[in-house]
Amino acid sequence: MAEQKQRISGDRLRAFIASAFEAVDVPREDARAIAQLMAQADINGSEGHGVFRLPQYIRRIKGGAVNVKPAIRVEREMAGMALVNGDNGMGHLVMKFATEKAIEKAKTAGVAWVGARWSNHAGPASLYATMPLAHNMIGLYMAVGSANHLPPWGGLDMLLSTNPIAVAVPAGEEPAIVLDMATTVAAYGKVKTKAQRGEMMPEGWMMDRQGNPLTDPKRANEGFLLPIGGYKGYGLALVMGLLAGNLNAAAMGRDVVDFNNDDSTVTNTGHTIVAINIEAFQDLKEFRQGMDTLIRDIRNSQRLPGVDRIRLPGEGSHVTRADNEKMGVPMPEALLAALDQLAGELKIAKIAR
Amino acid sequence: MAEQKQRISGDRLRAFIASAFEAVDVPREDARAIAQLMAQADINGSEGHGVFRLPQYIRRIKGGAVNVKPAIRVEREMAGMALVNGDNGMGHLVMKFATEKAIEKAKTAGVAWVGARWSNHAGPASLYATMPLAHNMIGLYMAVGSANHLPPWGGLDMLLSTNPIAVAVPAGEEPAIVLDMATTVAAYGKVKTKAQRGEMMPEGWMMDRQGNPLTDPKRANEGFLLPIGGYKGYGLALVMGLLAGNLNAAAMGRDVVDFNNDDSTVTNTGHTIVAINIEAFQDLKEFRQGMDTLIRDIRNSQRLPGVDRIRLPGEGSHVTRADNEKMGVPMPEALLAALDQLAGELKIAKIAR
Repeated sequence: MAEQKQRISGDRLRAFIASAFEAVDVPREDARAIAQLMAQADINGSEGHGVFRLPQYIRRIKGGAVNVKPAIRVEREMAGMALVNGDNGMGHLVMKFATEKAIEKAKTAGVAWVGARWSNHAGPASLYATMPLAHNMIGLYMAVGSANHLPPWGGLDMLLSTNPIAVAVPAGEEPAIVLDMATTVAAYGKVKTKAQRGEMMPEGWMMDRQGNPLTDPKRANEGFLLPIGGYKGYGLALVMGLLAGNLNAAAMGRDVVDFNNDDSTVTNTGHTIVAINIEAFQDLKEFRQGMDTLIRDIRNSQRLPGVDRIRLPGEGSHVTRADNEKMGVPMPEALLAALDQLAGELKIAKIAR
Repeated sequence: MAEQKQRISGDRLRAFIASAFEAVDVPREDARAIAQLMAQADINGSEGHGVFRLPQYIRRIKGGAVNVKPAIRVEREMAGMALVNGDNGMGHLVMKFATEKAIEKAKTAGVAWVGARWSNHAGPASLYATMPLAHNMIGLYMAVGSANHLPPWGGLDMLLSTNPIAVAVPAGEEPAIVLDMATTVAAYGKVKTKAQRGEMMPEGWMMDRQGNPLTDPKRANEGFLLPIGGYKGYGLALVMGLLAGNLNAAAMGRDVVDFNNDDSTVTNTGHTIVAINIEAFQDLKEFRQGMDTLIRDIRNSQRLPGVDRIRLPGEGSHVTRADNEKMGVPMPEALLAALDQLAGELKIAKIAR
């Protein structure tokens, strides 16, 4: 039997999330901004990075790990870059600030690279990579993940995270191409989902400490995630971490705090957003037409036996978004129960339904 | 028995390559610049992208596919970016120009993103990603590959290339981290090498048109390369192509010319180089120390059973470079014979040995 899910409208989701943050002393305007981004994650189908994370965020605020009244500011700036100091605020606020700065700068600089440090978990990478789209810009986002689950290739010590990369590129009549991927075969959230459902994992997701495939998600803490393409994915996770962590003087390697199991330590999370103004390079209309042609060439290309459709990155999320905007976000009973409990603790109204 | 290899010094390699380009009317200074970069590829151990390519480059110049007297120029420019028009010159000249431009601009802009179009195959990605290192900068390079060997995920039509990405990050006492990778499990050159040696390929490198693993490299033209991480590698190959191809109004998708099988068609190859000035973000000494700490943490971390050493990206190439600079580049007899034949055709002196 399929899991029972209620549909909750974006408006109700936003109102609930904002009231939760206000209850732990986040200023109203900030609470609304965070709620808008978190609900957008759910609407886009990034359900592991939306309201699912709310109890954890609130717990870390209560534990003193996150600053609810940060002075987010530009710490350093040159024509083509800025370094944002998030003052340990919620990652969503820091990255909204950083991305708006990148967009503003790319209007005159053509391309602007903005790093952020003293930030926190900011939800799905695609939230920020897609912000420049409305300004006829490409977005490129990289981050140091908020927990280390990946050892270097051949190693056992989990010194790396699933450091994601996201790239969003506008088209013309076709939806934008939006790639949002962890540098591991599976994100850790997928392992957790398999455990909840009592399912086994396919070989290739995880390895145990003897180097054997690990397929029982209940034994996940006895092993580690595997990078895509073996040593190549290790290399990608590493350099994404260097560009989003080391370059911004943010945490990397052994300094990364596992925010799933720690409610009081400041993480100094690093992210990088690049906004690329297409009109600096070429005529926007021609670019859009070229994108449409490429997208259609790919979609209409010959398929392997048994394949019903060739997909572009972001296509699934595009369909989910349209559906969720109309019908509301499907939410599992267990998640609604957890949010009801949170409402009780915070003495706020439950999600209306 | 191991393949017989002679060691040829970098000086002799450079002199030979330069004389070959001069023989087909490339101006002396340009011929020397190309020779320096091509020999450097061999010295770094990127043997599939060095002098091995010389007969093909010369053939394409003779066939009229490449402009030997290009007016390489900045076509568009803003504070944080430039677009270089390579005027269909040798890719090495175009990317040397573009990278020097990026470095120059990053001194004042902090970060500079330089795209190039109307370029050609430029050798290994790491050649350009590493150029900013000497200026205390990080280099990031992306390119559209010069032949399509990769279909979209689930597809049969090879609309994508192995579009590489390279990132070079300086450290302190430790050698720089240099990642240089194709977005496919194996580069096409590795398939060719397996065929030459009469060896089979491991499963996972290639697939045939029925979706079965293809392991006989002699049947390579009956199938296609597989991306790293399945649909993720397809997504990466695609977005690297968008950033290096579409953004620069260079060839992508069905417009990519297979330069291995065509000696007369202009390719309009696209590349992108980003130079990131570390001092714009933080104190250089602290950055270098942080890199050394991370590198040592990784190298000294616990290993899987049977693993003798944990490597950092670029470590192998660093060792090879030191060895080849001292001892000369090891060159297979078959390659030397091909270069001797080329010398005869061009009426230039053979490589001295």
